[in-house]
Amino acid sequence: MLPGVGVFGTGRTVRVLIPLLREQGFPIQAIWGRNEEEAESFAKELDIPFFTSQSDDVLLHPDVHLVCIYTPPPHTRQIAVKALGIGKNVVSEMAASCADALQMVAAARYYPQLLSIMANALRFLPAFVLMRKLIEEGYCGALQVCEARVYGGSLLSQSYSWAWEELMGGGGLHIIGWCIIDLLSHLIGSHAVRVHGILRTFMRRAGPGIRSVTSDDYACFQMLMSGGVVCSVTLNFNLPGSTHHEVMVVGSSGHLAVRGTELWGHRHGDTREEHLLSDNSAAGPAVRGLIAMVTQLRLAFETQKDRCSWERPPVAMAASFEDGLYVHTVVEAVKRASRSGEWESVELATKETQSNHIQHTVSQ
Amino acid sequence: MLPGVGVFGTGRTVRVLIPLLREQGFPIQAIWGRNEEEAESFAKELDIPFFTSQSDDVLLHPDVHLVCIYTPPPHTRQIAVKALGIGKNVVSEMAASCADALQMVAAARYYPQLLSIMANALRFLPAFVLMRKLIEEGYCGALQVCEARVYGGSLLSQSYSWAWEELMGGGGLHIIGWCIIDLLSHLIGSHAVRVHGILRTFMRRAGPGIRSVTSDDYACFQMLMSGGVVCSVTLNFNLPGSTHHEVMVVGSSGHLAVRGTELWGHRHGDTREEHLLSDNSAAGPAVRGLIAMVTQLRLAFETQKDRCSWERPPVAMAASFEDGLYVHTVVEAVKRASRSGEWESVELATKETQSNHIQHTVSQ
Repeated sequence: MLPGVGVFGTGRTVRVLIPLLREQGFPIQAIWGRNEEEAESFAKELDIPFFTSQSDDVLLHPDVHLVCIYTPPPHTRQIAVKALGIGKNVVSEMAASCADALQMVAAARYYPQLLSIMANALRFLPAFVLMRKLIEEGYCGALQVCEARVYGGSLLSQSYSWAWEELMGGGGLHIIGWCIIDLLSHLIGSHAVRVHGILRTFMRRAGPGIRSVTSDDYACFQMLMSGGVVCSVTLNFNLPGSTHHEVMVVGSSGHLAVRGTELWGHRHGDTREEHLLSDNSAAGPAVRGLIAMVTQLRLAFETQKDRCSWERPPVAMAASFEDGLYVHTVVEAVKRASRSGEWESVELATKETQSNHIQHTVSQ
Repeated sequence: MLPGVGVFGTGRTVRVLIPLLREQGFPIQAIWGRNEEEAESFAKELDIPFFTSQSDDVLLHPDVHLVCIYTPPPHTRQIAVKALGIGKNVVSEMAASCADALQMVAAARYYPQLLSIMANALRFLPAFVLMRKLIEEGYCGALQVCEARVYGGSLLSQSYSWAWEELMGGGGLHIIGWCIIDLLSHLIGSHAVRVHGILRTFMRRAGPGIRSVTSDDYACFQMLMSGGVVCSVTLNFNLPGSTHHEVMVVGSSGHLAVRGTELWGHRHGDTREEHLLSDNSAAGPAVRGLIAMVTQLRLAFETQKDRCSWERPPVAMAASFEDGLYVHTVVEAVKRASRSGEWESVELATKETQSNHIQHTVSQ
């Protein structure tokens, strides 16, 4: 049986997500907006029976058993941790900081029977699912290099919002980079050990007023992975009208590349690239991935006898909250590297090191 | 009148260059090979009247007034400096080191009436000539980012040669990277101030035998230019069967991209990229550039009364030996950065710092 869904957030992704959830049979029971007016107009527009700006009202709603968190990053941790505490299943976008991500991990570990996954839809994109399978089967041989490039228009809203502020989780590295960082470690099966990078804010003003933008619109960073693979990622959101989304994996005996939503491959000795997966949908990788993710969510819930239960296999490829913490750690290491100009180590925070760090800070 | 040409080297580029020179009317008078047999068989194959393995025999040949140097890098400096000293015009590929490049600069400065250009054919490629013009005219607005990517198969010969050895000027960074580094500074009109990079040798064995490869087959480096532009370059020669050659320049109001030999552009507000220069030739950028370079060389010489004289305008876009020294300095800084893991400054060697450095080394 499919659970009722409570959705947090009223942004662009949510506008795409809600119809997709309904298509798969999920009843949308409640919506949360940052204020009553926003929530009400959104609920009216999308025909949602309950709206509120109080997060508890959604979390305690008796018909909500799956919570989808697509809020500005600073809200994410609080809602996710509370939702799990109340016994709701959670799909969540990225939090604002490592500290927040660590609390989410703690909550997820405490309630292992509840679904707790990060909403990186790229992991579900069929082209990446097949790419990962082929990598495992040795299509590329020994992996050497991964390259990812995402180009597009500005991620900023016309009026001032959290996306303008680096410290609130704005910027290409945080918003798009986290999906790519998570995807790359998922595809090649190893974690970043050291990172180096350049972040820039070329567009310092996005609209009228005195506020200036602090979040990055250009990121170029390299990750040295534990297995020796070199990953290089370029994100550029100063290309309005362009949409380029490419991930290439190069190995000793061939390469694989996902361009948009299609997969191409080339084995040494072949005369040209082979088209391994075509896709006729007009949707880009993010939306196409979302469609696949929602389908897998349905499969995880529909065979169960009650609305709270789910089974793992259909969502086994999803990013866990642990993966989310890892990605946060990489994102913060890239930010440090951009400031220091040096290679920065990726050291995963644990509860212990976290409290040690606080103690250390306090004792100084 | 077109000068007689003496060619140094018997490699792949020379096999392309000689027919192109002849097409434009240049008589090929002499060829130099590393040994007599190589020179003889090459001369026979390409119908060249004089062959030798003694460089002086070409340089002192009375019918040679233009010397094209396409030797392994360790030979380049000696031949170039001597050629200018004897009063011959010189087109040269890159030397093996900064010290060599500096001596070439000194010779070129001493004989300003002689032609002395670096053989970076990419500067002559019509797509890059137009790209540079459009950048100057403000097509992109204020420049922000340049990206260059070159993918291809191995640059190594099956049997051991200089190309296997980093110290002899082998490797993707040295062989292909120098053209790209030179091209980028030419396109955007500024020099690298600091560089960072990763070099790798994934293919450590190129053939049978005990020798292992020390030259890079993967390079990923970033250059911060004096005007604030960020350049990012990726070279990967572990992609046999693929040929990808792309240079993209992104600015505040649009972008330009040369893919292969064609130019594309996009101004903010347009619905899609415009095709600014098409090219029906099957040749890739290197050969297509060579065709254009040889044509410009003809134009520089043909209007003159004697075989030694030339005029500057047709070859004004060529890289000077000073440009060659700059590129060498960047290449060596990238190598340092790859070893140190830090941003390295690009400090152009001058005669003074060079001799100071030697003194310093000796006195230690």
